[in-house]
Amino acid sequence: MPTRLLEIRQGVLSKNDTLAAALRARFHAAGVFTLNLVSSPGTGKTAFLERTLRSLREGGHACAALVGDLQTDNDARRLARSGAPVRQIVTGGECHLEAQMIAEHLTGFDLDTLDFFFIENVGNLVCPSSYDLGEDVRVALLSVTEGEDKPLKYPPLFHSADVAVITKIDLAEVCEFDRTAAHANLRAVRPGIRVFEVSSKTGTGMQAWLDFLIDARSVPGGAHKGA
Amino acid sequence: MPTRLLEIRQGVLSKNDTLAAALRARFHAAGVFTLNLVSSPGTGKTAFLERTLRSLREGGHACAALVGDLQTDNDARRLARSGAPVRQIVTGGECHLEAQMIAEHLTGFDLDTLDFFFIENVGNLVCPSSYDLGEDVRVALLSVTEGEDKPLKYPPLFHSADVAVITKIDLAEVCEFDRTAAHANLRAVRPGIRVFEVSSKTGTGMQAWLDFLIDARSVPGGAHKGA
Repeated sequence: MPTRLLEIRQGVLSKNDTLAAALRARFHAAGVFTLNLVSSPGTGKTAFLERTLRSLREGGHACAALVGDLQTDNDARRLARSGAPVRQIVTGGECHLEAQMIAEHLTGFDLDTLDFFFIENVGNLVCPSSYDLGEDVRVALLSVTEGEDKPLKYPPLFHSADVAVITKIDLAEVCEFDRTAAHANLRAVRPGIRVFEVSSKTGTGMQAWLDFLIDARSVPGGAHKGA
Repeated sequence: MPTRLLEIRQGVLSKNDTLAAALRARFHAAGVFTLNLVSSPGTGKTAFLERTLRSLREGGHACAALVGDLQTDNDARRLARSGAPVRQIVTGGECHLEAQMIAEHLTGFDLDTLDFFFIENVGNLVCPSSYDLGEDVRVALLSVTEGEDKPLKYPPLFHSADVAVITKIDLAEVCEFDRTAAHANLRAVRPGIRVFEVSSKTGTGMQAWLDFLIDARSVPGGAHKGA
């Protein structure tokens, strides 16, 4: 990569970090717990988030979501079925979300009334790892259909995550998914990472994930990266 | 994106196009048919390529592969089991392959003796679409586990492909994969695209794919983008 491009990229990243810190302060002031969901395309982020939003709302928690895609607002329409306020960021080809895009799309959300705010990133296991969006927790999703080696092959993304969620666990057997290897690979890249195994289709593992969310939010500053 | 970064990116792309044209001329002069395989992480590119290499070699065709990954040489080791010469490009975090990386890794391959040369790109459904690697045919892979909507959500990559391969077709039923919708979405983004359905595990559909490869190479300049 030419040196000049690298320097300017670093400039963009540093500007992103400054904006992300401001976003984080804004989320904390409003008392909203924010998550950034990252994964490959097709891991099932949207189905997982739809089920999460619906369950949280049924439990009396106020939540909202912002979802990024290159094109189409299919995901926002799917997520809106949960009843939560949802907005779409169409990146127009950009391969990741940046803090500036989040800041520009917060208008219309009443953050003060929210308990949880979810950001669903563009499906990409590489580029989103470099961009802090002001989240409290970064969640890396990995489906059983993708193979156990993904953390080793895409270490920056899994290394930058706070929590890993293994999705489509109902397909584990038919995909000959090796759970032990998957957990070992995740922990090799990110020692001590908290791992959940879920199926958005059958509901398996969802309660443990919801309990984690509610606990993490209630610990004052505890699970807050920026605190 | 700042204007200056955009300008420099365009400069990088134009330099890439010049290098890719030189690579394409070199491949054609050597009589080698070159393919660039692009997909999400976990689509099964490596398993598909391993089976393709093995079958082509059994049929008396000389082939080799170059495989890109952020980290690890797991894929090169898997592909080498086919008996074909294989080299790994470790991109060190870069999210796609560029023509310059291909040029730098051709040393050691005797192109004149090869019939087919495969490039397995970094698993990423966004960034590789912008980088011509001098290939004759760009192949976009999509697994049945990823969902039928991927072409609509990641149009630049599918639009830039010449051929689409739907992988893991043995899992279609358990994943409730809608074939009709998948084909319609592929054709909406890339009218007339040739679509193959395969299972690297069971071998379903592999013969049609191999026949296509052999036909495409034998048509003088016919399937050659640059010809």
